[in-house]
Amino acid sequence: MNKNRFEAFSDGVFAIAATLLVLELHIPQPHAGSPDQGLFAGLLGLWPIYIVYVATFATIGIMWFNHHALFHNVERVTYPMAMFNLLLLLLVSFLPFSIEVFSRFGLSPVAAEFNGLISLLIAVAFGVLYYVAAPGVDEPRTFARYFLSWRPWNTLGPLLYIGGIIVARWSPLLSVSLYAIAAVYYAAPSATRHLIRSQR
Amino acid sequence: MNKNRFEAFSDGVFAIAATLLVLELHIPQPHAGSPDQGLFAGLLGLWPIYIVYVATFATIGIMWFNHHALFHNVERVTYPMAMFNLLLLLLVSFLPFSIEVFSRFGLSPVAAEFNGLISLLIAVAFGVLYYVAAPGVDEPRTFARYFLSWRPWNTLGPLLYIGGIIVARWSPLLSVSLYAIAAVYYAAPSATRHLIRSQR
Amino acid sequence: MNKNRFEAFSDGVFAIAATLLVLELHIPQPHAGSPDQGLFAGLLGLWPIYIVYVATFATIGIMWFNHHALFHNVERVTYPMAMFNLLLLLLVSFLPFSIEVFSRFGLSPVAAEFNGLISLLIAVAFGVLYYVAAPGVDEPRTFARYFLSWRPWNTLGPLLYIGGIIVARWSPLLSVSLYAIAAVYYAAPSATRHLIRSQR
Amino acid sequence: MNKNRFEAFSDGVFAIAATLLVLELHIPQPHAGSPDQGLFAGLLGLWPIYIVYVATFATIGIMWFNHHALFHNVERVTYPMAMFNLLLLLLVSFLPFSIEVFSRFGLSPVAAEFNGLISLLIAVAFGVLYYVAAPGVDEPRTFARYFLSWRPWNTLGPLLYIGGIIVARWSPLLSVSLYAIAAVYYAAPSATRHLIRSQR
Repeated sequence: MNKNRFEAFSDGVFAIAATLLVLELHIPQPHAGSPDQGLFAGLLGLWPIYIVYVATFATIGIMWFNHHALFHNVERVTYPMAMFNLLLLLLVSFLPFSIEVFSRFGLSPVAAEFNGLISLLIAVAFGVLYYVAAPGVDEPRTFARYFLSWRPWNTLGPLLYIGGIIVARWSPLLSVSLYAIAAVYYAAPSATRHLIRSQR
Repeated sequence: MNKNRFEAFSDGVFAIAATLLVLELHIPQPHAGSPDQGLFAGLLGLWPIYIVYVATFATIGIMWFNHHALFHNVERVTYPMAMFNLLLLLLVSFLPFSIEVFSRFGLSPVAAEFNGLISLLIAVAFGVLYYVAAPGVDEPRTFARYFLSWRPWNTLGPLLYIGGIIVARWSPLLSVSLYAIAAVYYAAPSATRHLIRSQR
Repeated sequence: MNKNRFEAFSDGVFAIAATLLVLELHIPQPHAGSPDQGLFAGLLGLWPIYIVYVATFATIGIMWFNHHALFHNVERVTYPMAMFNLLLLLLVSFLPFSIEVFSRFGLSPVAAEFNGLISLLIAVAFGVLYYVAAPGVDEPRTFARYFLSWRPWNTLGPLLYIGGIIVARWSPLLSVSLYAIAAVYYAAPSATRHLIRSQR
Repeated sequence: MNKNRFEAFSDGVFAIAATLLVLELHIPQPHAGSPDQGLFAGLLGLWPIYIVYVATFATIGIMWFNHHALFHNVERVTYPMAMFNLLLLLLVSFLPFSIEVFSRFGLSPVAAEFNGLISLLIAVAFGVLYYVAAPGVDEPRTFARYFLSWRPWNTLGPLLYIGGIIVARWSPLLSVSLYAIAAVYYAAPSATRHLIRSQR
């Protein structure tokens, strides 16, 4: 498969999903006082949504960054790569809906769990895509070996999402903070070390 | 015509149409109980829309995949190709409206018929584009010959859409399931065999 | 200026504007009867909006097509080209708002005039961009000469828009039909003859 | 990092953010009289929003233009460039929300301050990205030197935004006009002189 169009379509979906997030932000109607005071209070009152917005934008942006690093050395995009890539893009393009949920219901436990679940599925889908696409030419790889070679550092991302889903019931704010930490973790060069190393 | 820009514009429309689908999902207002319970029930209650969402995203993603395969070997994009391509993109970009219909009216028969009709038109438009663009250099092709060379396997996609439109009156869920099967069918390598074969 | 990124940004805006049109379509709430009957009637009742939708999508798609043809031979994108191109993209990206007007007010005279006005401005902006960018290396060109060399066929597009704006007061449907004819006119090879010819 | 995909993703976000602005424009419901008169009055009454729309579209378009000029000579996109670029894109993609605020609350002081604040942050983020990415191979650069080399002309943009935020309380219209002037300033070749000069 032509790698250029594969990357162009993927870049498009990543860029659009990240930019569409903002369409799901809504200012609540002012309750009392002048409209201008109401607008000021309304914009300030959205601060939990801003945290979610930044964390989600960062998640998409960094997923794109790692997607780029992963496919940098791929010579030929195979049929399984294209299909699992579509699955990843499907999940990424679903994130704006999660922002809509936050926008409509505030920083509620269920909204935080929903966001964590989608993020977890994205992390898993990227893991599968990594398994399918990583240019591990120097070693015989099997699915079993891949999962047995458990490295704590590499599974920190999914664990943060699972932790966020669990604590959401008591503190949605802590939950969302864990997702933001996950985005920072995925952006850390050490997390993408193996991707970057393979590019010399 | 410059093939790069032709593909960039097409990739853009496919990627945007697929990513816009999510904007048409809406959570119903909670009826009773706590907002958080209402949100949980609301998110679960959208399950028929999720099926439609996944089937439609897959339809667009796989249409893009086959579009890529079709134009991989095209050396020069001609005027008719550009015009029929615009027609295909017009129909593809109409799919988010179908999700809006489902979102507003649920899994209703008319919504399922509407989705099937657009999908059928997309399949036909792709067929015409295939006829115009396929690099069949080794044989004299006429429109009559193209349609006389009826191969059951190749027409399975449109037949699934027609079947879905017919059964929608009795079971919109079955109808939508047929559309999902059509997406899987179009993704099957055997359906794109002739496209891939021509690329050696 | 790097022509690749200039074209990528332009392609992006054209593709997004065309695909966003669909977000402005809305189904009216059913008045009476079963929801399903209401949906059927609602989808049928949108037929004037469908005409506008197709005409506007075609206008954007064909403007992109001619934009491509215009810049095919441009070797170096200059500062004035970049600025007038931004003006053209600004106007093109405004077209979805016109569809929103139709969606909310139906096929009303003012809505048809508004659509015609934006389309006319787009045609004029493209004319200016053509003057700035066309690779007329073989003749000394001045702004005066360009406008004095009036060719009836080349000004048919703007005249159709002006005609549509005038007749909108009596028949918005005729008005919108004239815009559709303009899209077909701009797609005709004879309209882009001078663009295509310069590409050998 | 592959410069092509870096630019493709950035171009995508710029193009989408600019084109999404239009989705935040809404026509107020007609108050009295015929719908058509109401529509005409409504479209005219949006004139302050049109100014904001054009200024914001120009801000994004010209930020893209300067982004292009900045990375034209960058040979290799480093990790810090990629991260600060994500920050810039995050802020740019937030601009449509500002248009939504104007659309819902009109030309209010708080709306004008909000728009100015986002624009100021964008200008600062671009400044940091410029510091990180500018190919200043011929001189030892430190962060201190960069900020000590204060050139009035180069800081005019941020000053216009700060001025706009201050005067918004008394005249939102003047505030918005200052933002439009900032966009024109950033488009002036003299503002991008140092970018362009480095490209020979």
